[in-house]
Amino acid sequence: MRGQPQDFDRVLSSMCTEPHPVAREAAGEFLATNPGDPATYQTVSDLEDEVVAMLGEVAGVDDPAGYVASGGTEANIQAVRMARNRCVTHTPNVVVPESAHFSFKKAADVLGVELRVTPLRDDRRANVGAVERFCDEDTVLVVGVAGSTEYGRVDPIPELAAVASEYGALMHVDAAWGGFVLPFSGHEWSFADASLDTMTIDPHKMGQAAIPAGGLLARDPALFDALAVDTPYLESTSQATLTGTRSGAGVASAHAAMTELWPDGYREEYERQQANADWLADALADAGLDVVEPELPLVAASIDDVAFESLRDAGWRLSRTGNDELRVVCMPHVTREMLESFVADVETVTATVAADGG
Amino acid sequence: MRGQPQDFDRVLSSMCTEPHPVAREAAGEFLATNPGDPATYQTVSDLEDEVVAMLGEVAGVDDPAGYVASGGTEANIQAVRMARNRCVTHTPNVVVPESAHFSFKKAADVLGVELRVTPLRDDRRANVGAVERFCDEDTVLVVGVAGSTEYGRVDPIPELAAVASEYGALMHVDAAWGGFVLPFSGHEWSFADASLDTMTIDPHKMGQAAIPAGGLLARDPALFDALAVDTPYLESTSQATLTGTRSGAGVASAHAAMTELWPDGYREEYERQQANADWLADALADAGLDVVEPELPLVAASIDDVAFESLRDAGWRLSRTGNDELRVVCMPHVTREMLESFVADVETVTATVAADGG
Repeated sequence: MRGQPQDFDRVLSSMCTEPHPVAREAAGEFLATNPGDPATYQTVSDLEDEVVAMLGEVAGVDDPAGYVASGGTEANIQAVRMARNRCVTHTPNVVVPESAHFSFKKAADVLGVELRVTPLRDDRRANVGAVERFCDEDTVLVVGVAGSTEYGRVDPIPELAAVASEYGALMHVDAAWGGFVLPFSGHEWSFADASLDTMTIDPHKMGQAAIPAGGLLARDPALFDALAVDTPYLESTSQATLTGTRSGAGVASAHAAMTELWPDGYREEYERQQANADWLADALADAGLDVVEPELPLVAASIDDVAFESLRDAGWRLSRTGNDELRVVCMPHVTREMLESFVADVETVTATVAADGG
Repeated sequence: MRGQPQDFDRVLSSMCTEPHPVAREAAGEFLATNPGDPATYQTVSDLEDEVVAMLGEVAGVDDPAGYVASGGTEANIQAVRMARNRCVTHTPNVVVPESAHFSFKKAADVLGVELRVTPLRDDRRANVGAVERFCDEDTVLVVGVAGSTEYGRVDPIPELAAVASEYGALMHVDAAWGGFVLPFSGHEWSFADASLDTMTIDPHKMGQAAIPAGGLLARDPALFDALAVDTPYLESTSQATLTGTRSGAGVASAHAAMTELWPDGYREEYERQQANADWLADALADAGLDVVEPELPLVAASIDDVAFESLRDAGWRLSRTGNDELRVVCMPHVTREMLESFVADVETVTATVAADGG
């Protein structure tokens, strides 16, 4: 096979990571299965039911409805679709904070709904007052983010849910990335709160499952009926997905990872990566960068283009925020040694830029 | 891990199969990669470009635009979305034969288009005259199936394309299952024909790749611009997908399988399975069933409920058509020995039913 997969030793840009060894093994074992065809592939279909129950444990709710999606994008699109389908307005709108993932723009285009994007607070979290101003009688969904893509921020979820409720809209929490750390990060709400309707939570991000393993949960199974195409009531959520054939490897890997790691392994990983993020924030500040204080294990810091490109040339896989900051996601494959090496390179390239008068 | 994956030794119901060994190996190697993030995972992103080119070879066209989708359902939804987005009508409709896959119903619900389902000819292929009668100035897409789900029929594609052209609609060929056998089955058209616009062709079906590896091709790259959400022109088809994070394992497995098997391996497999299907059709007819003559390696035959359930109880994974026939898909894991064993069981259960006066 030509070319080699990406090594993870310099990957700081990805919200995905190396699957846990038990997850990798399970993925191989179940590679030739398809939970989209439960009559043929019964074992993996049963595993999926267990994964949904386990996702409920992680999210803090008993016995949710849900399924293992291709990823967070599908889960978010489906949440918008549920909300659109259950409402009678011909001009539905969805209100999201500016920090919401690109998948909501996709959802709006695909589903023919209006996307209303609200400005953030200075702390880069959703502005509840702005969200309320953007809502009206045609609002079918309000979205809050738990672990935003660019800054890892957690929105004021209960307050957003109150606004949704006031307008008769559903409340969706996009916890695609944050879902597996929220149980340990001290936030005071959970998906058990009656005001939350749907949640995206992806095993193939912080859950250490193999791609593809996203997750969509609903507190009320009846919400899935809004996705039924052929019949008024869904016999099985598998008909409701945006895909047909699905990856049993992803489902089995999620089952294996969560069985192994919930809750202690995930707790330990969160504490390790939060410590890494806090260390990195301090180290980058010491190196003279303007740092955005991390809330979850994600660090952003200002850097100029030349220095950024030099870091990429040195092999670091990094992303940039919309404000041209560098962005580092402290995923399970990230070690303190990697970050020390990274900071050393940052110090080198910023010194070089300064020396060049840049 | 609780439970075992489904063995393939009695699976006759699935349009998926065991991945080829080189595909399995490549899937493991590239498990921790995400072609939806080409800046981080560059190698697998390059592999995807090569897979699209290879799919073009299989389909008979040089240098198509396209990408490796989560599966045929996503590819079909996206073909409808392209057609909807490029047309100005507020009441778009899509005309499909009754044999079209369920994914077109999903597409219609998701995308807010009207689905017009046309009756088939007696030979279970699309009725071109009926399709023409259902078209009007709001028709944005006509669909023909190359390897239908229930009977493995190939529609009169060039004639359907002429109707599409007459109405200014795009022409989509759903070759999700049939795409990898059409080069050998003697059909006289190919995707190189200028009248065909988009095609679904899934490596994870007859292509022997691992799930998830579907395929969407377009002869004209400009059609993908209709899927651009943020910008007028797509820089990369990866933005256009219905997912975000994607499986590098699927992409790499498709690359490995196609490199290994195109064209001779696929030709040999087609010939073997067509022979199996023809043998099975004769054997079932000898056993007294009314058999639908196979066109491609898929056999349907009438059977009553009791006999069907007995076969399932014996461990055979079988599907039924909408007319309650049993349906057997001769995929690469199917052997003559399996079919002989199956026919023996059919003879047993039908004799039992006859003896019981059923």
